[in-house]
Amino acid sequence: MLDFEHTKHTLNNTKHESIAGHLEIGIAIMAENKKSENMLWGGRFTGGLDPLMIQYNESIHFDKRLYKQDILGSIAFARSNCKAGIITQDEFEKLEAGLKEVEEEWASGAFNIIPGVDEDIHTANERRLGEIIGKDVAGKLHTGRSRNEQVVTDMRMWLRDELRKLDEYLVSFLTVTAARAEKEIDYVMPGYTHLQRAQPIRWSHWLLSYGFAFQDDLNRLRQVIRRVNRNALGCGALAGNPFGIDRDSMMEELGFEGMMWNSMGAVGDRDFVTETLQWGAMLMQHISRWAEDLILYSTAEFGFVRLADAYSTGSSLMPQKKNPDSLELLRGKSGRAFGNMAGFMMVQKGLPSTYNKDLQESWEAMLDHVKTVGDSIQIAEGVLATLDTKPEKMKAALDPFMLATDVADYLVRKGVPFRETHHISGRCVALSEQTGIPMNELSYEQMKSIDERFEEDIAATFDYEKSVEMRSAKGGTSKKTVLEQIEVLRKML
Amino acid sequence: MLDFEHTKHTLNNTKHESIAGHLEIGIAIMAENKKSENMLWGGRFTGGLDPLMIQYNESIHFDKRLYKQDILGSIAFARSNCKAGIITQDEFEKLEAGLKEVEEEWASGAFNIIPGVDEDIHTANERRLGEIIGKDVAGKLHTGRSRNEQVVTDMRMWLRDELRKLDEYLVSFLTVTAARAEKEIDYVMPGYTHLQRAQPIRWSHWLLSYGFAFQDDLNRLRQVIRRVNRNALGCGALAGNPFGIDRDSMMEELGFEGMMWNSMGAVGDRDFVTETLQWGAMLMQHISRWAEDLILYSTAEFGFVRLADAYSTGSSLMPQKKNPDSLELLRGKSGRAFGNMAGFMMVQKGLPSTYNKDLQESWEAMLDHVKTVGDSIQIAEGVLATLDTKPEKMKAALDPFMLATDVADYLVRKGVPFRETHHISGRCVALSEQTGIPMNELSYEQMKSIDERFEEDIAATFDYEKSVEMRSAKGGTSKKTVLEQIEVLRKML
Amino acid sequence: MLDFEHTKHTLNNTKHESIAGHLEIGIAIMAENKKSENMLWGGRFTGGLDPLMIQYNESIHFDKRLYKQDILGSIAFARSNCKAGIITQDEFEKLEAGLKEVEEEWASGAFNIIPGVDEDIHTANERRLGEIIGKDVAGKLHTGRSRNEQVVTDMRMWLRDELRKLDEYLVSFLTVTAARAEKEIDYVMPGYTHLQRAQPIRWSHWLLSYGFAFQDDLNRLRQVIRRVNRNALGCGALAGNPFGIDRDSMMEELGFEGMMWNSMGAVGDRDFVTETLQWGAMLMQHISRWAEDLILYSTAEFGFVRLADAYSTGSSLMPQKKNPDSLELLRGKSGRAFGNMAGFMMVQKGLPSTYNKDLQESWEAMLDHVKTVGDSIQIAEGVLATLDTKPEKMKAALDPFMLATDVADYLVRKGVPFRETHHISGRCVALSEQTGIPMNELSYEQMKSIDERFEEDIAATFDYEKSVEMRSAKGGTSKKTVLEQIEVLRKML
Amino acid sequence: MLDFEHTKHTLNNTKHESIAGHLEIGIAIMAENKKSENMLWGGRFTGGLDPLMIQYNESIHFDKRLYKQDILGSIAFARSNCKAGIITQDEFEKLEAGLKEVEEEWASGAFNIIPGVDEDIHTANERRLGEIIGKDVAGKLHTGRSRNEQVVTDMRMWLRDELRKLDEYLVSFLTVTAARAEKEIDYVMPGYTHLQRAQPIRWSHWLLSYGFAFQDDLNRLRQVIRRVNRNALGCGALAGNPFGIDRDSMMEELGFEGMMWNSMGAVGDRDFVTETLQWGAMLMQHISRWAEDLILYSTAEFGFVRLADAYSTGSSLMPQKKNPDSLELLRGKSGRAFGNMAGFMMVQKGLPSTYNKDLQESWEAMLDHVKTVGDSIQIAEGVLATLDTKPEKMKAALDPFMLATDVADYLVRKGVPFRETHHISGRCVALSEQTGIPMNELSYEQMKSIDERFEEDIAATFDYEKSVEMRSAKGGTSKKTVLEQIEVLRKML
Repeated sequence: MLDFEHTKHTLNNTKHESIAGHLEIGIAIMAENKKSENMLWGGRFTGGLDPLMIQYNESIHFDKRLYKQDILGSIAFARSNCKAGIITQDEFEKLEAGLKEVEEEWASGAFNIIPGVDEDIHTANERRLGEIIGKDVAGKLHTGRSRNEQVVTDMRMWLRDELRKLDEYLVSFLTVTAARAEKEIDYVMPGYTHLQRAQPIRWSHWLLSYGFAFQDDLNRLRQVIRRVNRNALGCGALAGNPFGIDRDSMMEELGFEGMMWNSMGAVGDRDFVTETLQWGAMLMQHISRWAEDLILYSTAEFGFVRLADAYSTGSSLMPQKKNPDSLELLRGKSGRAFGNMAGFMMVQKGLPSTYNKDLQESWEAMLDHVKTVGDSIQIAEGVLATLDTKPEKMKAALDPFMLATDVADYLVRKGVPFRETHHISGRCVALSEQTGIPMNELSYEQMKSIDERFEEDIAATFDYEKSVEMRSAKGGTSKKTVLEQIEVLRKML
Repeated sequence: MLDFEHTKHTLNNTKHESIAGHLEIGIAIMAENKKSENMLWGGRFTGGLDPLMIQYNESIHFDKRLYKQDILGSIAFARSNCKAGIITQDEFEKLEAGLKEVEEEWASGAFNIIPGVDEDIHTANERRLGEIIGKDVAGKLHTGRSRNEQVVTDMRMWLRDELRKLDEYLVSFLTVTAARAEKEIDYVMPGYTHLQRAQPIRWSHWLLSYGFAFQDDLNRLRQVIRRVNRNALGCGALAGNPFGIDRDSMMEELGFEGMMWNSMGAVGDRDFVTETLQWGAMLMQHISRWAEDLILYSTAEFGFVRLADAYSTGSSLMPQKKNPDSLELLRGKSGRAFGNMAGFMMVQKGLPSTYNKDLQESWEAMLDHVKTVGDSIQIAEGVLATLDTKPEKMKAALDPFMLATDVADYLVRKGVPFRETHHISGRCVALSEQTGIPMNELSYEQMKSIDERFEEDIAATFDYEKSVEMRSAKGGTSKKTVLEQIEVLRKML
Repeated sequence: MLDFEHTKHTLNNTKHESIAGHLEIGIAIMAENKKSENMLWGGRFTGGLDPLMIQYNESIHFDKRLYKQDILGSIAFARSNCKAGIITQDEFEKLEAGLKEVEEEWASGAFNIIPGVDEDIHTANERRLGEIIGKDVAGKLHTGRSRNEQVVTDMRMWLRDELRKLDEYLVSFLTVTAARAEKEIDYVMPGYTHLQRAQPIRWSHWLLSYGFAFQDDLNRLRQVIRRVNRNALGCGALAGNPFGIDRDSMMEELGFEGMMWNSMGAVGDRDFVTETLQWGAMLMQHISRWAEDLILYSTAEFGFVRLADAYSTGSSLMPQKKNPDSLELLRGKSGRAFGNMAGFMMVQKGLPSTYNKDLQESWEAMLDHVKTVGDSIQIAEGVLATLDTKPEKMKAALDPFMLATDVADYLVRKGVPFRETHHISGRCVALSEQTGIPMNELSYEQMKSIDERFEEDIAATFDYEKSVEMRSAKGGTSKKTVLEQIEVLRKML
Repeated sequence: MLDFEHTKHTLNNTKHESIAGHLEIGIAIMAENKKSENMLWGGRFTGGLDPLMIQYNESIHFDKRLYKQDILGSIAFARSNCKAGIITQDEFEKLEAGLKEVEEEWASGAFNIIPGVDEDIHTANERRLGEIIGKDVAGKLHTGRSRNEQVVTDMRMWLRDELRKLDEYLVSFLTVTAARAEKEIDYVMPGYTHLQRAQPIRWSHWLLSYGFAFQDDLNRLRQVIRRVNRNALGCGALAGNPFGIDRDSMMEELGFEGMMWNSMGAVGDRDFVTETLQWGAMLMQHISRWAEDLILYSTAEFGFVRLADAYSTGSSLMPQKKNPDSLELLRGKSGRAFGNMAGFMMVQKGLPSTYNKDLQESWEAMLDHVKTVGDSIQIAEGVLATLDTKPEKMKAALDPFMLATDVADYLVRKGVPFRETHHISGRCVALSEQTGIPMNELSYEQMKSIDERFEEDIAATFDYEKSVEMRSAKGGTSKKTVLEQIEVLRKML
């Protein structure tokens, strides 16, 4: 090696912190040399590690959350090695007992992570196991096993369990949605397209429009869980297990629903994370749209809903403010969830097959994502459960122009082609705008002057409730069809 | 309106093209005023459109590809309106005959798009229908229907059909993969982790590691198709259909497998596009990794495979070059496919519910994505089908260090804890490196000096074929388990 | 090669189109064999190309737009080779004349692309040049030059020119912004935070808040252009030019402002595209927020502005609708622009150095992006220039609670700590809400009952105009400071 | 409010955790009611907060890192309010002394965050200040100030300081690059395009190809810093400051280089974060490509470099492995950095103007990004500084085909058109491949048989060193031009 350290010191002498950093490293390396003996691959390494590199490399600060899955996986692996005759029954029992003791230490908070030594949860657990039951037996735990398969097994078990919680959160949120839709079915409000008032709808119809989107999320989630919940244990570093381990029995013991069929694929695959991130990013987009609507509806200008204090905050400067922070955070977190996904997809692009250290980036994306999505569904449920609706404001926002289609439909029923009725109704709108007379107050003569086929019963058209009830084909706004939707939604939960 | 045009002209007099542009617009607007009478919403608009805006707004240049779906949807809609008594049997027959004529014009290339008038496929078809069967009947086609539901119905039908083609491409690609894995099962090559030589594997094992990833893509695809293939027709602009249309019979006629249950959700939902984009982006990541491996394997340094001329190109400067352009394009297109997805997810973030014009951006993302993915699977199949493998190069790249784990396993079988055997084998590696003697040529005495438990049968460990056969647990590299994988993969096709 | 084609045919006999596709390919390959002789690398290739691969590989359908840049670059290159003595003056003159003729053919539409032969603009131009001036001299054009440097030179020239147009569009848009801000400075409207009414502001202050964001875009653009506009010509395929070409003189002739200093970097770098995409994606985010505000302001609920008909569209179903399609498209296109960027960044991730075919993906992302951004700025300008403002609606939306901070500030001026005044003013808000009496109509006694320090002059606080004028520190809403902003903005144009 | 809680409880009775969660919330809310009195907006809120919402909302766990910037900003603000006569000199001195005491508490670790009360660094500091100097004076600190301006001021100051550190790291890394390029200038290695051996280059030329990319990063960084480093203090919540504060003097005191000119823009703008994220994402892409090359070069197959033990790790299963984990992490982190950017751009899309709570998502993206980029540059420097190069392996990998262009150039110098020489050289390559005779060992007669114009001096062409020296035009591989590059690079540091 050339004398670059010297070159650097001479060149950068005064101004760069990183130099000082490297000097510290020098000292640290000496200290590290001893520690590194305890590392799994310590056998042939003679140098030490750059302390910054140790920190850049280690995962214990986040993967420790999976201590339990790691221990369950180790027990299952040891049991199978015992059955295969690789370790004795006595050795297995010691391993199992020791591992359970380690688990208890974690659970009680007694586990002591040794910085710089316990680089990940796997090494930490095995190090501690050796201290408890002795290195001779502990040293047999990893027989024929690689961290490559171990890490992915832990992740799949953890993720499966977490996704099942998200399933419950979603069901709970949809239950509130359905209940609210049922109780408030009589509230009629403006429906918007392009954020322009379009046609009258039921408030419940709005609730259910998102209900079905979240219901699709639920269906997708259940499909994702099945692919997450597959067994990679017994795949070795990449080439499989040489001691004839029974992968099916481990699959059963650990609750997996399927098998990873190719050992190389099994250790290099993080699709189960990517799928989860894609799923969550889409769910969060639904939340972002749901929140956007509610933010609009809670403005002074719309005023259809009012958030509970629990989900609002005030202003440090303006005493009158009540801000929908919860909804804005929900909308904002959709960006964060997308970033998890986009970032991790970038990580995987163009990687060579099997395990590459780049895949360590799957951890934090996964952990942050699952927390973000889980919290968000629960917050959304809380917001919805405590939301104050203002049916009188909804009603007040209906305006006669929203019945222009009904006016056109009126003529359709008299046999006029729709394209013509659309133009006629447009002329009624124009007349109303020019004269300043609300469309529903135009005189019968005024209507007649636009088109002869208007008859006196046109007046009955100007009824928001009737308009809503007219849309009685499946999926429409009539009470019967909205109640049918609620029933359909509930059946799927 | 203030006199901003004047202000602008004065300020920008000489240098800005956009001014000239706006002057042209002025003239164009006069010309447009006449044309705009033909637009669907022509009834009350008095101004014209900015020509740039017309182009910015129109979708005919891409949505014309769906002329067929648009016509099938219109026929189904008219038939249902006929059943519901909204139009007569005679009117329906005229509409159907006219629509079929329009379809034939498209199919034969005779359809003449009128620029600035036919802004999208829906208007184009209806305009032409009117010319053929007269406006009176044609004007009844759209009764109770909105473009909002029409566009999404067309897209779902088209996408369903295209995704089924992608299913076939994938099956075809996997069939080649399985066939190749079966025939070339005897080729042993280095397996890599971290791109460092790790353990010997079968070439077929490598092929299958991707085979199972693509097989997951296939499973996901079939789940996506079911959600794509749902009926949104009969949902109106947002509030449903007021003429009691039978949505179930349209669903059946158009081959949909499910119902969109909420009219607002149905018109504002583009999840079926997002899901497709997510699906394709993940598949393309598999292709990017598969291509990366093959690019590496086709370098002079690895040399395991050689691409057919059909999938390579040369250099304009360097006569000796044979570049794996096909594989590089496959890898690169994974970025494009991701961009489609990321871009369209951005489009949807925070949109208010129901239809907003932003959703028009779903079109080009979808069209480009489906083409990119479909072409890529076919190119990948072509590359694989014509690939020249070099088993002798694969064999030559195997080196004795790749058996260090087998050396450790040897001692495990003698009862030594794995952690210890790992260190012992590490010392053999170190001795080989220091002495320059290949590990498989270290003398029995040299091995013994490292650990007493080595016996003469250690020599038999240095056999790549044996190493591969030892990994006989499910998912491993032994011939039996690889053949089992092929069987499993084929069953799923 | 194994007989995979056969295998495939047997296996897939009936159902898969891709089989038929491959049969067609077989026939096509024979046809292609002749064509491929004309390809640049034809010397040693004996096979043909998969027709799908030809299409997957070719770039002529988009890079033809750069015919002019390609020809200018070739002339400069030939001139330098002439100076270096590599070609004669006579040969140079023939090359130049021939190239100009090719340019004219493109300009007049006479250029005839030969499908399957002219894979890109470089081959097309050189092929045609050979036909015009003979292959002997034409064959000297490429001496010491590689397509790797040629493509990047063309792209940099084209992009530089296009970005300068975007500079002009931005200046024009900002000129309208400033003019409008000046003329409409007296309009007072609600300012929002969290989309809740916060404090009164001037409409011009809103206009300028975006004005300064776009002004930053303009500054960034000018910095990007300087990095785009650098010379890569004379770098060869990767290692440089072996004929002593004078890169400085080519730099000057082609109008470049800087040099790419390392030949490997020069051919493998697409940062100039990435930077452009990042720049445009950020600008489009500003447009997305600007459009979002205007979409809100043009709802029935806010009603502050009304779009010109030229930038609105109607509904195919609802006669009364006037939708802000232009603004929605602007908002939506921000997603597309982001997708260009995200996709192309994905393409580059982890690529080995120098040129890889993956980089071809830079083209379409760049072309689409520049068009999207350019169109969008112009549409935004058009929307703003023709926008109808409703000052009376703005005024009507002001409500006394928006002066709660002013009430707190009133007490601050009497020496009360702000934190206390904030609570006191909050109690006034609460009293107003409880009693239903607008805050500005609370009696002096009511105010006094909340805090003794209120005096009769508190009444003067309830004046929106005064409130706006009070914010007279730099950057605030007073007329003087808004006029100062306009001046600052204009200076930067 | 409807009794949704009850509905939920009845429906979900047994299985859903979220129910239990909500019951706990009920209890917690009672506890919270008291605490919430201390919140900034406590004046009029009567309800409490959902504990999950409190955590979802709070930022103290990450924004506490900016305690120093927050305190400096507060002192500057108080000083200006003192000058403006809003507070007395005595009050200012108390505020300043108190704030410095708070700062010391943070620095010494004595500061005690009160969970649920100190939701962010601003409230925490002000709460503590009140305890130290009394609420009367402390309550005047925030006069005319909003958290909206405060948070953005803190972020800009912090980010400016951090980016200056990144500047130093980059300079340090480039210094090592230049030093290494200078010392190892005589190493000749294969240059690659498409990862195929192309032409011989100097190892230093490779180093510098990235050197110039990172140098562009440095230039961009310095431009970004100037835009980050602008003053937003004095902008209020959105409308500006009503007490005539002197923003220029605060700008000077806090070291800002520019002014945010519009108060609404100032509080709603996070472009300074986006720009940083875009900048870092691009830099990390350079690192990803640099790392990819070195990962390849450190494989057994290439073997050009060997990483120091400090930047490698071993395998838990395979004793012989030495994995380039540092490089893989560097490559992987490019995905994470991209995810930060993509996610935060998603957050901002379509937001209404000024402050929305969504913008809180800027924090973690910024903090994580700056750390990721900073660590990565330092790790890359460490890897490069300690890298072991293998010039003999580089040399051994050169093969005669890499001189095929030189063979073509030889004939060019004899007057043969390049296109023809390219084909002739291609035939030499083909002959060599067919006969198995290395191209440089083809006999003079064999060469002659391909083209008469070959003369005996063709032999001299087969010299890698000569080939490299021939590329002597600016930016090429000759020693002189590489040294020139080093000089240019150093000048820019």
